Amino acid sequence: MAYELHYWPTIQGRGEFVRLALESAGADYVDVAREEGGMEAMMGYLDGPGVKRPPFACPFLVDGRKVIAQTAAILLYLGPRLELVPAGEADQLWVHQVQLTLADLVVEAHDTHHPIASGLYYEDQKAEALRRAEDFRRNRLPKFLGWCEAVLQRNGNAGRAVPRMVGGKLTYADLSLFQVVDGLLYAFPKATKRVLRKTPLVAALHAGVPRHKRLADYLASERRIPFNQQGIFRRYPELDG
Amino acid sequence: MAYELHYWPTIQGRGEFVRLALESAGADYVDVAREEGGMEAMMGYLDGPGVKRPPFACPFLVDGRKVIAQTAAILLYLGPRLELVPAGEADQLWVHQVQLTLADLVVEAHDTHHPIASGLYYEDQKAEALRRAEDFRRNRLPKFLGWCEAVLQRNGNAGRAVPRMVGGKLTYADLSLFQVVDGLLYAFPKATKRVLRKTPLVAALHAGVPRHKRLADYLASERRIPFNQQGIFRRYPELDG
Repeated sequence: MAYELHYWPTIQGRGEFVRLALESAGADYVDVAREEGGMEAMMGYLDGPGVKRPPFACPFLVDGRKVIAQTAAILLYLGPRLELVPAGEADQLWVHQVQLTLADLVVEAHDTHHPIASGLYYEDQKAEALRRAEDFRRNRLPKFLGWCEAVLQRNGNAGRAVPRMVGGKLTYADLSLFQVVDGLLYAFPKATKRVLRKTPLVAALHAGVPRHKRLADYLASERRIPFNQQGIFRRYPELDG
Repeated sequence: MAYELHYWPTIQGRGEFVRLALESAGADYVDVAREEGGMEAMMGYLDGPGVKRPPFACPFLVDGRKVIAQTAAILLYLGPRLELVPAGEADQLWVHQVQLTLADLVVEAHDTHHPIASGLYYEDQKAEALRRAEDFRRNRLPKFLGWCEAVLQRNGNAGRAVPRMVGGKLTYADLSLFQVVDGLLYAFPKATKRVLRKTPLVAALHAGVPRHKRLADYLASERRIPFNQQGIFRRYPELDG
């Protein structure tokens, strides 16, 4: 039975981390809300009083009778099933830990343009966004990508064409770091390129991951929604620098 | 061998979610940074170039040779070992999903007093904090605790003296919800009490969890650090209302 991914149909957002895992593995899945009637199906899980274990928000995955929300929890579940993690508990927990840290970075990247409230327009919190984005560029972005660089250095990547975050095979930690860097390059091209010059393994991973055959097909397809101004990563030139 | 918890020694913070799990289970552990020389030990893991899988931040748990960071990942690891989760994969993933959702709430509670930058003083971002806290009280706090109420309603808690988030036995989801509500009542007593009147099962869980014998002992001990103005939950009366 195909996995069902439920997520907003017009943005990459957090759903993209799940899409990349499913696509790279060639998994059978339906991106439900992009199908006819799919938004109603998604809202039924979010608002339906009969859902025993309700998602707080999308994305969520439906696998038979299981409903799993929270991006990192979805990937924890899919990792072994899609062969996107090593076999042992300790390694799988480490991949998950990397994912949770990238998730923290994603929140902070989002909050650069919405530091006050998700329900308000950017224009209504632009002054605050300018301040928050400056701190993000100066302190947080270098700290997060510097940590990723250290993880890559310590994973014994010498001689690999494409560096890996954990072990020698592709994991969802690689896919998620690719996605985060891709989004950061969209939103903060100047600041991100400056940091990537000091984190060459992160840059090499970002350049190398899309050469994976199935990912290359996906990224070139219509299934890959372009970055836009409704997602997590938004390009406001005044927030970059 | 005793578990080692590494966390800032003067605040509850994110470490408290791990402390509550360890204490409620009567586990053998050392709160390392509160011991002589413990801060140096903690910083060695965070900054040491020889740490193969470096924590991005504390808290982290050391169990033999394993180093596990990210609060939710630590609890995922400890859950089965401390018998704070049901046996099956689906139930354990659901407890984890609850934890991740509470972790999102914790970030938002923190950001009410630090909406611009963790590295700046509250006084340097007070105007922004007033705006963010208003949105938190009006929209986010009721949404998160409303979701917790729905989870409790759908867990078949009728007739239980203390409602449970998942199944009939104490899980780390219960401990973490207790802790979040406790922190919210410290930081936003007016707004939180208003929401708790509409979420009676959440209120009953918060009142009931500390009657657990080992937790009651812990909460009355010096090991429980009082809430204070350096932690995640801070009481600035101007942010409540």
